[in-house]
Amino acid sequence: MRMVDLITKKQAGNALTEQEIYFIINGFTDGSIPDYQMSAFAMAVYFVGMTEEEAGFLTMAMAESGDQIDLSAIEGIKVDKHSTGGVGDTTTLVLAPLVASCDVPVAKMSGRGLGHTGGTVDKFEAIKGFKYELSTEDFIDTVNKHKVAVVGQSGNLTPADKKLYALRDVTGTVQSIPLIASSIMSKKIAAGADAIVLDVKVGDGAFMKTVEEAEELARTMVRIGNHVNRKTLAVISNMNQPLGWAVGNALEVQEAVETLRGEGPEDLTQLCYELGARMLVAAEKVTSIEEGKELLSAKIASGEALEKFREFVVSQGGDASFVDDTSLLPQAQYQIPVPALTNGFISDWVANEVGEAAMWLGAGRATKEDEIDPAVGLMIHAKVGDAVKQGDNIVTIYSNRENVDDVIAKLQAAVTISDSAEAAPLIYETIDQA
Amino acid sequence: MRMVDLITKKQAGNALTEQEIYFIINGFTDGSIPDYQMSAFAMAVYFVGMTEEEAGFLTMAMAESGDQIDLSAIEGIKVDKHSTGGVGDTTTLVLAPLVASCDVPVAKMSGRGLGHTGGTVDKFEAIKGFKYELSTEDFIDTVNKHKVAVVGQSGNLTPADKKLYALRDVTGTVQSIPLIASSIMSKKIAAGADAIVLDVKVGDGAFMKTVEEAEELARTMVRIGNHVNRKTLAVISNMNQPLGWAVGNALEVQEAVETLRGEGPEDLTQLCYELGARMLVAAEKVTSIEEGKELLSAKIASGEALEKFREFVVSQGGDASFVDDTSLLPQAQYQIPVPALTNGFISDWVANEVGEAAMWLGAGRATKEDEIDPAVGLMIHAKVGDAVKQGDNIVTIYSNRENVDDVIAKLQAAVTISDSAEAAPLIYETIDQA
Repeated sequence: MRMVDLITKKQAGNALTEQEIYFIINGFTDGSIPDYQMSAFAMAVYFVGMTEEEAGFLTMAMAESGDQIDLSAIEGIKVDKHSTGGVGDTTTLVLAPLVASCDVPVAKMSGRGLGHTGGTVDKFEAIKGFKYELSTEDFIDTVNKHKVAVVGQSGNLTPADKKLYALRDVTGTVQSIPLIASSIMSKKIAAGADAIVLDVKVGDGAFMKTVEEAEELARTMVRIGNHVNRKTLAVISNMNQPLGWAVGNALEVQEAVETLRGEGPEDLTQLCYELGARMLVAAEKVTSIEEGKELLSAKIASGEALEKFREFVVSQGGDASFVDDTSLLPQAQYQIPVPALTNGFISDWVANEVGEAAMWLGAGRATKEDEIDPAVGLMIHAKVGDAVKQGDNIVTIYSNRENVDDVIAKLQAAVTISDSAEAAPLIYETIDQA
Repeated sequence: MRMVDLITKKQAGNALTEQEIYFIINGFTDGSIPDYQMSAFAMAVYFVGMTEEEAGFLTMAMAESGDQIDLSAIEGIKVDKHSTGGVGDTTTLVLAPLVASCDVPVAKMSGRGLGHTGGTVDKFEAIKGFKYELSTEDFIDTVNKHKVAVVGQSGNLTPADKKLYALRDVTGTVQSIPLIASSIMSKKIAAGADAIVLDVKVGDGAFMKTVEEAEELARTMVRIGNHVNRKTLAVISNMNQPLGWAVGNALEVQEAVETLRGEGPEDLTQLCYELGARMLVAAEKVTSIEEGKELLSAKIASGEALEKFREFVVSQGGDASFVDDTSLLPQAQYQIPVPALTNGFISDWVANEVGEAAMWLGAGRATKEDEIDPAVGLMIHAKVGDAVKQGDNIVTIYSNRENVDDVIAKLQAAVTISDSAEAAPLIYETIDQA
């Protein structure tokens, strides 16, 4: 088999076989297929696409390219949730204890963030003492005992995907649906997921800019899941404005506590019900989405969800006192209001810009080496559809530097206030069957 | 400027600017743009194409990437001829002296061949004493004195093209019309051509398999020529059977002598008139193709063309006695007839297979290291449309090995004899205006 022949086969629009795709991924991983052939192949895939079957082979070849976490020692169906990434996305902080409180195991590996705001691991680091570096044995023990654990990625997971992603990033081949889909799915499968719930974000703050693209990506992933025997469900959600109120690590932990108390922002709460219910369905805990939502709602109302959060934090070495008093979380030195410049209704919040504003404060990383400041960030008080008066505080800046004129200007430029505005839909679509 | 942005710009179907294309080619040549970005770019060009203007910029950027031959010390318009390559293509051997005999300077750089049969340089090596390694100064002096010189490529011509071609070869991006066209044109321009006449071959023995592809390539090159101020004309000619009778180096030299005497094969003679007349038009020696053909025909009839061949060979140190007695050319030890297997008309000669048969005898190189035997090759006696009887000698093998059963079998498989057949057209189309 020669790589050049597989490139031209793909280029001509033909589907590659399982053997051919494994040849490519194994050769690329061990270096026998050079970058210049792989980038040409990726560009051919960009233009020609892949069948669902091919994308499934690609997913499994990448999942098997390195270590694979064996979670079979954990009882029950292990469901993982994946978000394609957005601004102020606090869902994992809420869902991990909430789903675990329904007696469904949540064994989650999370990454650090680059750009915009922190990743899930960065958010947990805002909790004093929280340890996310567990051995696989401790990870499994913790889940068996407490039904939940969140750890940082360790080991040599999906090296083929890491190498391919780095190459795609510099060769204009990031925006290919089958390549994005197999990248995401391979990581979840290598991390031991039996079933997967996907939150595909759409909007200016997300990777997918249109509902059509997001839907295609979601459907592709759901079909890949089917091909590789991992039950997969998807929700397509709005990222045309930040999710919830908080953008920033400690602020999002605080928001998670409020949401688990039943006092969180409406959009975040609703999205957690949609995703959480699907996790319960995928885990075969309930038989319908509606039943799932009811169970989640009951766990919040009874306080069991919040109690599980406390247990979860303590089990990973964290100081859980913030659950009763969120002022114990890291606090920023300055709180600076950002006034509305005119009367009207918020018609647009450019989520991307809001995320960057938080990054400028230190809530996210521009480069891998940047240190994150857990205390800083933003609290949004007026969301799309809300009425505001000139001078109203629409967003509070939490900062450890006094002069934030740059951030104020960025935020005022990121918001549009119009004569009228309707609240944007939160959920565009759900895909519960392949 | 970042290469990744230029890749995505091209990928999205946008035209690159002159500055952007020079950035790519200069960066690729000096190594600051890595192969993996260049191969992704080439694949994007494969799918999206290039405007004529872009292909013109690419041509000039590659032409200027290394040494450029300055032929300005030669009086008159320097016209170069380029063939996209075929089997038994003796045109350069005929055209160089023929056009020079019309007082138009022919300053030609030629390469060696790989595959099928020898390149032009290999053919001249069949002439005892012929020196093709001249300094640029001697090259120019020779042309000024004798109106003609043919030399091997020297210096660091179009390194960008060499590097890009090697990369395209292993990344499935050879078959891109703008990349093929700019590769050819850049070499001609770097070699000092003021005007260019193209012989685009079409058929199974050529790079272009269909007339449509060949026409697109020819038109693209003619338009590139226009964009970069090199008058360019093109002929699309048949390579569904070998050109002329001879395939092999000394045999083709002999065929050139016969053609310059007016006794050559009809198709070779006709193609030399078509190409030669366009060279005279491009050099502004004549004002019409018809006038050009008449002048060429007169030079053959008067013996001036053959005389010029003799002068040309002698001026480059060659022994020209073969012009009067072609038996003085290298002779193969064995001449073996290949009989027709049935009665009928020749309806197909697979040129590619005939070329390979000649290569098996030693007339061409399978690898760069192979030595060429100038004496060996084939003489075809029956071409498409000709009637043959079972047992007729349709092709004579000139060999230095006695057993040529493999070559006989290959040739008998390469020919189709049918109940009826029409002679194939030699010229499919001519492109004399952009």
